Amino acid sequence: MDTVLPDGRDRRLLTRGPAAVMAAALAVVVGAPAAQAATRHAWVAAVPTTWNAVPNARDAIHGATFDRAETTFPTVVYARFTRDWGKPVATRIPGPLVKARVGDKLRIHFKNMDTLTSAPHSMHFHGVAYKPSSDGIWLPLHSGKGGNVKPGQTFTYKLTAGPGSAGVWPYHDHSQSMEDSIAGGMYGALSIAGRHEQRADRENVVMFAPWHGFQTINGRAFVGNTPVYEAKVGETVQWDVLAMGDEFHTFHVHGHKWRTDAGTPEDTRGLGPAESFRVRWKEDAPGTWLYHCHVESHMAQGMIGLYRVTA
Amino acid sequence: MDTVLPDGRDRRLLTRGPAAVMAAALAVVVGAPAAQAATRHAWVAAVPTTWNAVPNARDAIHGATFDRAETTFPTVVYARFTRDWGKPVATRIPGPLVKARVGDKLRIHFKNMDTLTSAPHSMHFHGVAYKPSSDGIWLPLHSGKGGNVKPGQTFTYKLTAGPGSAGVWPYHDHSQSMEDSIAGGMYGALSIAGRHEQRADRENVVMFAPWHGFQTINGRAFVGNTPVYEAKVGETVQWDVLAMGDEFHTFHVHGHKWRTDAGTPEDTRGLGPAESFRVRWKEDAPGTWLYHCHVESHMAQGMIGLYRVTA
Amino acid sequence: MDTVLPDGRDRRLLTRGPAAVMAAALAVVVGAPAAQAATRHAWVAAVPTTWNAVPNARDAIHGATFDRAETTFPTVVYARFTRDWGKPVATRIPGPLVKARVGDKLRIHFKNMDTLTSAPHSMHFHGVAYKPSSDGIWLPLHSGKGGNVKPGQTFTYKLTAGPGSAGVWPYHDHSQSMEDSIAGGMYGALSIAGRHEQRADRENVVMFAPWHGFQTINGRAFVGNTPVYEAKVGETVQWDVLAMGDEFHTFHVHGHKWRTDAGTPEDTRGLGPAESFRVRWKEDAPGTWLYHCHVESHMAQGMIGLYRVTA
Repeated sequence: MDTVLPDGRDRRLLTRGPAAVMAAALAVVVGAPAAQAATRHAWVAAVPTTWNAVPNARDAIHGATFDRAETTFPTVVYARFTRDWGKPVATRIPGPLVKARVGDKLRIHFKNMDTLTSAPHSMHFHGVAYKPSSDGIWLPLHSGKGGNVKPGQTFTYKLTAGPGSAGVWPYHDHSQSMEDSIAGGMYGALSIAGRHEQRADRENVVMFAPWHGFQTINGRAFVGNTPVYEAKVGETVQWDVLAMGDEFHTFHVHGHKWRTDAGTPEDTRGLGPAESFRVRWKEDAPGTWLYHCHVESHMAQGMIGLYRVTA
Repeated sequence: MDTVLPDGRDRRLLTRGPAAVMAAALAVVVGAPAAQAATRHAWVAAVPTTWNAVPNARDAIHGATFDRAETTFPTVVYARFTRDWGKPVATRIPGPLVKARVGDKLRIHFKNMDTLTSAPHSMHFHGVAYKPSSDGIWLPLHSGKGGNVKPGQTFTYKLTAGPGSAGVWPYHDHSQSMEDSIAGGMYGALSIAGRHEQRADRENVVMFAPWHGFQTINGRAFVGNTPVYEAKVGETVQWDVLAMGDEFHTFHVHGHKWRTDAGTPEDTRGLGPAESFRVRWKEDAPGTWLYHCHVESHMAQGMIGLYRVTA
Repeated sequence: MDTVLPDGRDRRLLTRGPAAVMAAALAVVVGAPAAQAATRHAWVAAVPTTWNAVPNARDAIHGATFDRAETTFPTVVYARFTRDWGKPVATRIPGPLVKARVGDKLRIHFKNMDTLTSAPHSMHFHGVAYKPSSDGIWLPLHSGKGGNVKPGQTFTYKLTAGPGSAGVWPYHDHSQSMEDSIAGGMYGALSIAGRHEQRADRENVVMFAPWHGFQTINGRAFVGNTPVYEAKVGETVQWDVLAMGDEFHTFHVHGHKWRTDAGTPEDTRGLGPAESFRVRWKEDAPGTWLYHCHVESHMAQGMIGLYRVTA
């Protein structure tokens, strides 16, 4: 059973303005929940795009405005395509959210369509099992074709969601162009549920990374540009939090707490490059809340967003 | 039963010199231990003061001396007042240690008495439950009066110590002046015990934050200026460790260890901005020990203090 | 029963080129596994040496080459000596890996043979119990002889591996010359097993620290210079991960995962200065893999190595 289905729930967000559109783009999933293990396919390409980190041209909290030229740059991102390279579905930062379950096999078909820099690219996945040939790394003498996919070429990464794969994990370019590519936005997330785990009603991806001097969440900076996540009282809400780059961050949500796997309550958790975690709660706090990185300079440079809970 | 009582135990430290005086200032508590849930009140104002991060003018370890002008600056801090704004009790960095128990309600009466910068201020509390109106954030179109309290105005934050609130949490300014105010020292700690939890014999607050180029603990830099904490063999000792600002720190105590909530022994733990934790041990190691941030440049810039254990 | 025995298993690595030689140097141990608690002795001196962080003169991944003068500097390190200062056994970064078991006493005989800088030096140990006189700290008025051992002098640190000492811990200079000495490489690791714990088949030390502008693992930078660790499918493999200096790191191994003590699977974990942890797995993934700090700039500056698993 090979399926590539967008997730219906997230789709509703499509009606809610530019920030919500970005959230919806994350809903590019590999496979709907399934009772039995499956091989799931996805088509993902490195494609050039023009990305604006601050589409509304404003830092609403500090009252600053920006010229489009200060916030918009050509870059290369991971875009999902429909089956067999039909057409691009979303061309954004981060790349498609790849969802699977423990026991699934994943076949990620990657094509380098980078006509902007003509650099080699790759995909390196955390959290899943694979052979060295699917490691996606550039390493002279050791790496195979999948570690440095040249423009125009394709490579299929073969991954397995094993017993310890339940959780949220980053993927990113690990080719010869790794530094530049990650700085430009070539990263995304895997969300792997337990075999029989109930998925949360809401799954909010928060990828902290710098981008052209801004501190971004999913490639956007400042309230009104970063994702506006939503939930209703009574829903289970999961946050998938990841970081890429050089810096450490502290994820904080106002008016909410969660527990560590050791049982300790938290409302702020630190993470560094390539670290990732998921936290969950049952929503009971209606209102408009902030979520942000609590490193103050990061917050000031854009790493902050809105979370709206309705009764 | 509404009470505002200083904690008798910490008061003894008042007799031990300037560093100990600062420790004592932390003993401004909201409510004594109580068998049943209560509504506890505190009066806290933003007030201007002149603060000296290095009162003894010395970095004893490196043998350096400072001019008072290099270490003393006007700033705004949270000062506790007696009931109904009677009189200021302590005007220092950090603000008053607010103690409560799971099940308690807190009413924090805040007044902006900042005649130094005339900026708006607020209090944003971690770890407790509240409605958006008590979130204390500046957010155009969304925040209410409590998010940007103007000079001369007051606001009462209504908080609840819920089931997941047991622990140590920061509070800080989250108004329009947030960056400057936190840099100046507008932060403090909440210490919430379980409903029936036995409080430790000693509770030592360690707030890591930069201040005018120094790396400070509770607003002070270098051994002899930072708090001198004390204990006796046999006592239970709790450390409340928090960080504010942009940087990450690693808390280390010499000659001692504790366990994580997952059971792993540690003697050094990292934390970033707005992260916080408490660790405990039963004291069994007499002597004079160091506690410090183990980031070497931070230690060199003042983030180090003394802990004295007597038999 | 006092013994100082190199560990036979690690010795095999001696046959595998310069990077492997460094790995072997880590196998300088204090005491073989023992059924009963013992007092274990080691002789460790601060000695001058000339250290080259990039012996093969290449950054293989980025294709860069270095002049020897850019990568080689005089420095002071901890060298193990045979019993009673017989002869130096290894003069490298990091210092000898000190192995013991819970219940053991350790007597670390330290001699300052630093004829390069003529600075005082010391050894400060994490994770073990000791009296203040064995704390190894420079603190005017408080520290004893062991905190600032002058050139030509010796001091014996008396340590106990207590109930909470099982784990991996750093040691380092904490004397008056601490900052310069740690920057130069005066640090090492303690590996303490539970009283009856089965040691892993492989124990791979990874000490993250900066050195003369490089980001090093065990004092070396770039693949081919950093340790090449090896294992066979079926073996238990333990990684001892530690950091010294000012910076935070994220340890990542390709193609592998482990679980936190709370049971959460990970393939990347952050740590800051003086933090340390050990992770273990039963090897089941043959191939040549990368291990590295996932802070991208650190990886680019050398913090990356190879791990080879054979079937």
